[in-house]
Amino acid sequence: MKLRYGIILTLLVLLLSASAFDVFETEALTTEEAATTTVIQTNGNEYNSMEEFQASTDFIKFTIDNLWILIAAFMVLMMHLGFASVESGLTQSKNAVNVIYKNVFIVTVGILLYAFVGFQIMYPGDFNGVFGFGGFGIGFDPSDPVAMLTPAYGMDMTIWSDFIFQAMFAATAATIVSGCVTGRIKLSSFMVFGVLLLAFSYPVTGSWVWGGGWLDAMGFYDFAGSTLVHGVGGAAGLACVILLGARTGKYVGGTTHGIPAHNIPLATVGVFILWLGWFGFNGGSVLNADPATVSYVFVTTALAACAGALASMVTTQIVMKSLDAPMALNGILAGLVGITAGADAVSLMDAVMIGAIAGIIVVLSILMFDKLRIDDPVGAISVHGVCGIWGTVAVGIFSPDVSFGVQLLGTLSIVAFTFVFSFIVFGAIKAAVGVRVSKEIESDGLDISEHGNQAYPDFSPVKTSELGAFAD
Amino acid sequence: MKLRYGIILTLLVLLLSASAFDVFETEALTTEEAATTTVIQTNGNEYNSMEEFQASTDFIKFTIDNLWILIAAFMVLMMHLGFASVESGLTQSKNAVNVIYKNVFIVTVGILLYAFVGFQIMYPGDFNGVFGFGGFGIGFDPSDPVAMLTPAYGMDMTIWSDFIFQAMFAATAATIVSGCVTGRIKLSSFMVFGVLLLAFSYPVTGSWVWGGGWLDAMGFYDFAGSTLVHGVGGAAGLACVILLGARTGKYVGGTTHGIPAHNIPLATVGVFILWLGWFGFNGGSVLNADPATVSYVFVTTALAACAGALASMVTTQIVMKSLDAPMALNGILAGLVGITAGADAVSLMDAVMIGAIAGIIVVLSILMFDKLRIDDPVGAISVHGVCGIWGTVAVGIFSPDVSFGVQLLGTLSIVAFTFVFSFIVFGAIKAAVGVRVSKEIESDGLDISEHGNQAYPDFSPVKTSELGAFAD
Amino acid sequence: MKLRYGIILTLLVLLLSASAFDVFETEALTTEEAATTTVIQTNGNEYNSMEEFQASTDFIKFTIDNLWILIAAFMVLMMHLGFASVESGLTQSKNAVNVIYKNVFIVTVGILLYAFVGFQIMYPGDFNGVFGFGGFGIGFDPSDPVAMLTPAYGMDMTIWSDFIFQAMFAATAATIVSGCVTGRIKLSSFMVFGVLLLAFSYPVTGSWVWGGGWLDAMGFYDFAGSTLVHGVGGAAGLACVILLGARTGKYVGGTTHGIPAHNIPLATVGVFILWLGWFGFNGGSVLNADPATVSYVFVTTALAACAGALASMVTTQIVMKSLDAPMALNGILAGLVGITAGADAVSLMDAVMIGAIAGIIVVLSILMFDKLRIDDPVGAISVHGVCGIWGTVAVGIFSPDVSFGVQLLGTLSIVAFTFVFSFIVFGAIKAAVGVRVSKEIESDGLDISEHGNQAYPDFSPVKTSELGAFAD
Repeated sequence: MKLRYGIILTLLVLLLSASAFDVFETEALTTEEAATTTVIQTNGNEYNSMEEFQASTDFIKFTIDNLWILIAAFMVLMMHLGFASVESGLTQSKNAVNVIYKNVFIVTVGILLYAFVGFQIMYPGDFNGVFGFGGFGIGFDPSDPVAMLTPAYGMDMTIWSDFIFQAMFAATAATIVSGCVTGRIKLSSFMVFGVLLLAFSYPVTGSWVWGGGWLDAMGFYDFAGSTLVHGVGGAAGLACVILLGARTGKYVGGTTHGIPAHNIPLATVGVFILWLGWFGFNGGSVLNADPATVSYVFVTTALAACAGALASMVTTQIVMKSLDAPMALNGILAGLVGITAGADAVSLMDAVMIGAIAGIIVVLSILMFDKLRIDDPVGAISVHGVCGIWGTVAVGIFSPDVSFGVQLLGTLSIVAFTFVFSFIVFGAIKAAVGVRVSKEIESDGLDISEHGNQAYPDFSPVKTSELGAFAD
Repeated sequence: MKLRYGIILTLLVLLLSASAFDVFETEALTTEEAATTTVIQTNGNEYNSMEEFQASTDFIKFTIDNLWILIAAFMVLMMHLGFASVESGLTQSKNAVNVIYKNVFIVTVGILLYAFVGFQIMYPGDFNGVFGFGGFGIGFDPSDPVAMLTPAYGMDMTIWSDFIFQAMFAATAATIVSGCVTGRIKLSSFMVFGVLLLAFSYPVTGSWVWGGGWLDAMGFYDFAGSTLVHGVGGAAGLACVILLGARTGKYVGGTTHGIPAHNIPLATVGVFILWLGWFGFNGGSVLNADPATVSYVFVTTALAACAGALASMVTTQIVMKSLDAPMALNGILAGLVGITAGADAVSLMDAVMIGAIAGIIVVLSILMFDKLRIDDPVGAISVHGVCGIWGTVAVGIFSPDVSFGVQLLGTLSIVAFTFVFSFIVFGAIKAAVGVRVSKEIESDGLDISEHGNQAYPDFSPVKTSELGAFAD
Repeated sequence: MKLRYGIILTLLVLLLSASAFDVFETEALTTEEAATTTVIQTNGNEYNSMEEFQASTDFIKFTIDNLWILIAAFMVLMMHLGFASVESGLTQSKNAVNVIYKNVFIVTVGILLYAFVGFQIMYPGDFNGVFGFGGFGIGFDPSDPVAMLTPAYGMDMTIWSDFIFQAMFAATAATIVSGCVTGRIKLSSFMVFGVLLLAFSYPVTGSWVWGGGWLDAMGFYDFAGSTLVHGVGGAAGLACVILLGARTGKYVGGTTHGIPAHNIPLATVGVFILWLGWFGFNGGSVLNADPATVSYVFVTTALAACAGALASMVTTQIVMKSLDAPMALNGILAGLVGITAGADAVSLMDAVMIGAIAGIIVVLSILMFDKLRIDDPVGAISVHGVCGIWGTVAVGIFSPDVSFGVQLLGTLSIVAFTFVFSFIVFGAIKAAVGVRVSKEIESDGLDISEHGNQAYPDFSPVKTSELGAFAD
């Protein structure tokens, strides 16, 4: 029975390898080897060889910009650690390993898929700006390497930096889905869905904006992906949760039974790490190290996160009469998701407002989805989906240069496309092989039944009374 | 009854918003928009416009320096994750969520408060160097934006980078207090105290030195804040603990009963993260990316941390006849706190000595405070307060350019001011509404009673014998 | 009895201090103070003073390169947090504090030892390229400081950056051993062995390649240390495990009894942190911030990690009929270890292949060592040793510029030297004082008996049924 995983995984690896072998045989390229006759034009200067370029101050500036993007890529990978920690911390301990496995799978397959197909679909948005496809692989032309390693590539970074920064982004959307469906989804069905979302849906909507597609042409503004990343993850998650149904016991009779988290400190570590990584997510989206813009984005990102946390604390106190810690943590994330679309385009006070409103929205949204019996164990639909929409629309409200109507149209188009794609694909998987584990497996927990693991197999805490004087 | 939190938080948010709305309406500023006629002078060169400056090599240097400060700010935010992990790991599990909530509140409110008032109080130290106040908000003058985004601002960074780096520092002092008072403080009383400490006391003493105030004029040297940050946190914590009293059961009859920690691995993660972040705390305090100075500070910071760990291991073995792991971790922190004041001003061997002595001091200090029945659950008064004082005074001992007397005077002045401020303010809160939870709440744990949360509500570890062959 | 630790630690500290006091009394050096008459030659330019150099664009380039190495050093220190998390997470909870203590000891003593002797042994490889020794201390010549703080030092970084980056590497090898021997080694014996490995064996083999020794002269290629760091750690670990024997109860009769891990989420956090740190480990090994090379290394490092994870998932499914999460995590590490030797020297597709093969190897190797009754609780011999060898040899297979024969010879020489050194030294310790704790101590756990600590002394999770409505 578990053979299905082996088949899925093996096919995936073979497919990736086969598609790549002939088109992807790039030699290792370092600057030393890249000494062709390409003319490099940048900042009004012209260089006839790599050597000439490397002796210039333009090269020094290129080095800084490129380095910042690499460091930002490192920070965005941190976010995957953050997601794994938050999502496993907020589930029951019997499903914690399953969450981890899903996230490890998604981030690793996501980066590989992005190398093999996603990078080429997303840039550029050919076919009238709807989607493009430039071939397999990272798209390096070995006959003209200099073009890819200098400003001749068209950005303040090399093609490798461009790729790795974007690849770290790509898996995020599917990882958000992972949180929503936790505790009852079949691992194999999630794998198939995640791969299709990453290989097709995410880069298509991405190409509409960042690939110079139709929404970009209309002036739609989504700086670092409130909608393109977070909204997409939330919309896909919502479609999956509707098709999947709630966890057993969550909604019984007319009431909601809280299914508790298992490790709040772990979730806290995850949220702080997400916040840290967000400075790379937003700061790196400047796409160079311009002092004014990057530092401004750091400040708006920090202020929105803080305002989100405080506003969610107040809202939770008023609405739930409680000082619920997970809600405060969700408030940080809500503020971050909210500011992502306009981090370089709104004033500081607007950033505080956007974050604070996101912090209010996230609490109300989580409560609303429970009323609607949409069971989202970690609140990801609210945090990423709803606050992502809010953040994108907010740019149209707060920035004088951006049209509210276009923001609304673009946000709805992307979210709707993703929702419909997800509903059809996940629905097809449901019809074909099913998407939900049996009641027994759900009751035993996915860790044992799907993985043969437990999160804490040899955990033996000792009570105070058994301890001697050495205990700190 | 819990209404008090709602009122406190709502008032705070309203206050912040109201104070800010009219003075803080800065447009989003990027370099492109900032093209006024300010003359930018730097390194003996003069530029008449932003465009001219951006085409210069001075701009490239400015970009690096600025980027380093932003990365350092990111690292200092890591420290808040470190504090949350250390402090929750070293408390009982029934109070772990409360620690997390306190730290999330303090770091988020701290950054916002710093944006609204702290940044303006700290710089510059007007009023005869005692304290200054330049108005509300970050102090951006929209009529002359270039001045704030170039070396014309007066630093090797933009105003935004200056702000965000300092803001990440600001919450540290109050977070240190959070560790000392854990397990029995009323959340609302802590919130009020933390806000007042951050909004007033911390920036006032900060202005004495970093704002160019009276201690700076005397030649007092505290490179990155052994006293200004850590000593302040420790002094405030001591005042609060004295007013608050020990946790129930800690000191009964003539003996000290260890109240054990709940999660040493979590505390370990926290200490390593603090160490990592300290490279930004100290390295960023160079305030530019000068290769010689920043790399030297990295080395002294690392050596002091290592010497602190080893010295505390030896001391613990000699004094406690034990290889207590939390003490070794405290040794790392002690070394780091110790070197913070002189990281760029002492020799490598002195850095080893300062760290080693801090590692000895921290063990003896923790034992001493227990003898004095000062109950500091995480040892923060010793780690940050006592070792902070040691580190600052040590600069006067080891550096030939710094006066021992001035170091002593400055350290005592800052610590005394903070202690007295804290004693009066926390005493007033105690008199007005009380600072300590009831015996029942303390016994049940603050997580349930203050938050309705538990740190590990669905944690169900399974014993070895119940596991099958799959367990790793 | 525990006096032995005190003696070991005190002697160590005294030795370090004594050896250093007279040779290591370097004044704090900042650029301002360093203004001698050294001529600085770089990029074909010549500067007669520090001031002249600082006004040049060469200084700006030097600043970036140097800054990147410092940030990379920070990332490599992250790896020590990763190791502590992985190794304690994968052991039983009764030994978790012991793992942490060992790792804190090794990283702190490792950095200090590297400052006092290792840095001088490793560079340069004098004595016919077998080993060198330039004296005690970091080797700063106070009479000519400029030489050490500019390109005159011979690298794109200051001596301090060179030192701190290498020092962060040094402790890694011994930390790998710590994982292999966990659960039954005497702490004091491990300490002595670790110190000798770090002070002598590691820098000797290191000097053969990175110090310009005999293997470097032959064209042996190990970019960032697949063999020099990871292979060395694995070989030393294997020698220790053979001499130490398996944990009681692991191999009984003809079968292997899995001794379960205690905290998979903690191990997961550790693996992600290791991955993050690896971008500094490999990316920093470029030794400057060259945009093409550093970004290329980031991409090969990421792709190999992803391929390793997916390949280990497939292999585990095929061989073990399971979706074991720790094996997937080991797959990430295997891919990273594998690509470390050739991260800048193989094509992208080769990086995927090298990582994927490492992911297959690690699963088979872990199963094989269990068949051989070599008890390696965290799989470190397989992950670091076997995959390290694979990665180094793979450069000879995939890179046209590197000789397969030389790679094989070099790898075997380094691994054999380390294994023999470790076997003799650890054997001598075994003969002299023993290396294994008593059966009682092993049964009780090392935390209580060696440290008087427990990992979770006050951990009291509450079952769902006891919770009220507030639980999230």
